[in-house]
Amino acid sequence: MLNKGVTLWFTGLSGSGKTTIARAIERRLKASGCRVEILDGDIVRTNLSKGLTFSKEDRDINIRRVGFVANLLSRNGVIVMVAAISPYREIRDEVRSMTENFMEVYVNAPLEVCESRDVKGLYAKARAGTIKGFTGIDDPYEEPLDADVTCYTALESVEESAAKVVAQMESLGLVPVVQSVNGRQ
Amino acid sequence: MLNKGVTLWFTGLSGSGKTTIARAIERRLKASGCRVEILDGDIVRTNLSKGLTFSKEDRDINIRRVGFVANLLSRNGVIVMVAAISPYREIRDEVRSMTENFMEVYVNAPLEVCESRDVKGLYAKARAGTIKGFTGIDDPYEEPLDADVTCYTALESVEESAAKVVAQMESLGLVPVVQSVNGRQ
Repeated sequence: MLNKGVTLWFTGLSGSGKTTIARAIERRLKASGCRVEILDGDIVRTNLSKGLTFSKEDRDINIRRVGFVANLLSRNGVIVMVAAISPYREIRDEVRSMTENFMEVYVNAPLEVCESRDVKGLYAKARAGTIKGFTGIDDPYEEPLDADVTCYTALESVEESAAKVVAQMESLGLVPVVQSVNGRQ
Repeated sequence: MLNKGVTLWFTGLSGSGKTTIARAIERRLKASGCRVEILDGDIVRTNLSKGLTFSKEDRDINIRRVGFVANLLSRNGVIVMVAAISPYREIRDEVRSMTENFMEVYVNAPLEVCESRDVKGLYAKARAGTIKGFTGIDDPYEEPLDADVTCYTALESVEESAAKVVAQMESLGLVPVVQSVNGRQ
């Protein structure tokens, strides 16, 4: 099925659930024949930005690169989901301004919740001081002021969050309206 | 029109005609409804690899990044044309091995011809020693041993070279056979 491309930009703390929600959306969209790619922060760091640090300057360079690749894909009809902490508002807005069909998805969970999940063990290292400049601990996270969708992952299930995002895409005409698992048209 | 994705990798000296041939192919393929992207060496350096030098190590990192992006696009049905000197055989072979539907196009012109064109004025700078490590002057170019297509741009017109590449893509079933400007089916 042909579809317009779009860049879904998931921003939020480490452990907030960005990639998990993206994977749930991927399953839904692939089932309706859409072309989908997930650009996960870790994969991108490995393949596009090895050697960059987590300084503000290097984080911004990394985000610009991801934005460049997302735009290449989305202008060719791919639904691209970027899952990257992307803590700085200004660079997110820069990427938005250079990307057609951009949706910002704020994956919002309290720091305490993200830290208690600590899937990658990074919060423990940040608290111990073995990782410096960790977002939420000793580096700022600038919340979106006007996200297209906000997912509250401490309150919603993954499927609820995914459904909200897909509904917003449908309402913007970015994907065809499809029969969901709950029978919603 | 839907089409399989493919990565066309143009390798050759600076000034050999890589981007020029890619643009000519782009015109042909877009006219038949294909999705096409050109990843030009200069654009890629700006957007993915700013800060990298032209040392062998950094060139290899750059080529791996381009390969990563080309693969993302081609697996989503895009015909990607990479136009990058990519002087080292081993890294070209590495990219080939990680990319489905990969075609290596050797854009072959004698150094003297490329140097006499000197579109960007780089050969003059390399001869003057103000640019170091310039391919063909004081850095090696390793010719492909088994390119899928070789374009001899000192002997062929741009359109002749482009037609050879498109014919090879057609014969491999990578693009639909289309009416060319010369009436070839």
